[in-house]
Amino acid sequence: VSPTYELYYWPGIQGRGEFIRLALEEAGAPYVDVARTPRGMLTMQRLLRNWPISGIRPFAPPFLRHGKLLIAQTANVLAYLGPRLGLVPKNEASRVAAVQIQLTIADFVTEAHDVHHPISSGLYYEQQKAPAKARAASFVETRIPKFLGWLEHELVRSSGDYLLGRRLTYVDLSVFQLIAGLSYAFPNAMDRTRGDFERLLALADRVSQRPRIAAYLGSTRRVAFNEDGIFRHYPALDPSEKTAAHG
Amino acid sequence: VSPTYELYYWPGIQGRGEFIRLALEEAGAPYVDVARTPRGMLTMQRLLRNWPISGIRPFAPPFLRHGKLLIAQTANVLAYLGPRLGLVPKNEASRVAAVQIQLTIADFVTEAHDVHHPISSGLYYEQQKAPAKARAASFVETRIPKFLGWLEHELVRSSGDYLLGRRLTYVDLSVFQLIAGLSYAFPNAMDRTRGDFERLLALADRVSQRPRIAAYLGSTRRVAFNEDGIFRHYPALDPSEKTAAHG
Repeated sequence: VSPTYELYYWPGIQGRGEFIRLALEEAGAPYVDVARTPRGMLTMQRLLRNWPISGIRPFAPPFLRHGKLLIAQTANVLAYLGPRLGLVPKNEASRVAAVQIQLTIADFVTEAHDVHHPISSGLYYEQQKAPAKARAASFVETRIPKFLGWLEHELVRSSGDYLLGRRLTYVDLSVFQLIAGLSYAFPNAMDRTRGDFERLLALADRVSQRPRIAAYLGSTRRVAFNEDGIFRHYPALDPSEKTAAHG
Repeated sequence: VSPTYELYYWPGIQGRGEFIRLALEEAGAPYVDVARTPRGMLTMQRLLRNWPISGIRPFAPPFLRHGKLLIAQTANVLAYLGPRLGLVPKNEASRVAAVQIQLTIADFVTEAHDVHHPISSGLYYEQQKAPAKARAASFVETRIPKFLGWLEHELVRSSGDYLLGRRLTYVDLSVFQLIAGLSYAFPNAMDRTRGDFERLLALADRVSQRPRIAAYLGSTRRVAFNEDGIFRHYPALDPSEKTAAHG
């Protein structure tokens, strides 16, 4: 019997932890979101400060505890969970392909974060608004089309309805989260380009309607998007077309 | 018999490809650095534009071809090569720990790149010099100490001379490359903090003296650092202490 999964992540945001939560939820796996339990935040911070366990201390949350193993880095956690939760085929070629997609999504997520923090993650957004506006323009014009265009193309090339073929894998769950986050942070930009990513948006929609995912999204376990997370909605960074033309 | 490894990466820079080159060189593995062979650059670009192979098209180089398998994303390639080249123990806990460290190094490498490109990778450094200077100050003051401090601490906690214990793994090679890159790009900043990362610098030094690595570094296969790569030396981004105090 597999021990209960313990997920450690900041309790107030979706952030990178959400990619792991979605996998655990889709699989109906037994897990505890430790930092959201009473005194769980203290437990997490104490663990991070004074790592009592053999193995490598996480540089930052999220991390997962499973039996004796502790694993950090989102894509690493998903690569570990994938075969155990039936969320990736067990053959090496599929597992390697899933990690390749997941790491590319991770790169994109980092860029989405840096839009509102182009100078320093140690300063507030309000302290770097001018460079954030410049970075947002470039993100919307060149990076969203490049990354989503790549995912759309790989989906078209797939032999099935999912990125790796006929069966859902954890990368499809991550695509849903990516689209949800971008749609929250950049509604105007996403509206303008919907036609370019039809298959991808349809995939995200299908994922959102899976019974366990739909139940999760409607539950209090799903933290709402907010301006402490990775995907933040700042109107100045997502002008409407008219404003953009004038700016 | 394992087929020859084919590495695909931009020929004029060390970049992310270098982390893979170092693993192949340390292992004495048979490999071709395809884009550095005659007409190899055309081969790589044609592959990227019109992916004729099943499996996921790389978002960007580096990628590796090994027999029928194509693999992109540096940490993914190293996770694949590690057990095959004897550069990571085969047990799951060690492999997972290695990926965790490698992905944290990858995050740091992305930040090192974004110091000179804080607004857009589609613009030249010269077009984003002012925000680059601000980002460099924060990178040097807070990010270098945080990332290198984490690596130093994990090295102190290790049961041997290497990050994962008594035997060299591919993450130790990546630490060497990271220290080499930072020392090239930020010589003043690195000089000021040498005392805080003694074990890490000693590890990088030991790696550089391994026979195969030393031979590689002295060969024409090692591309020199330059201002097209990830680690770039721009004096304005690495002021001496005096200048920094006045700025």
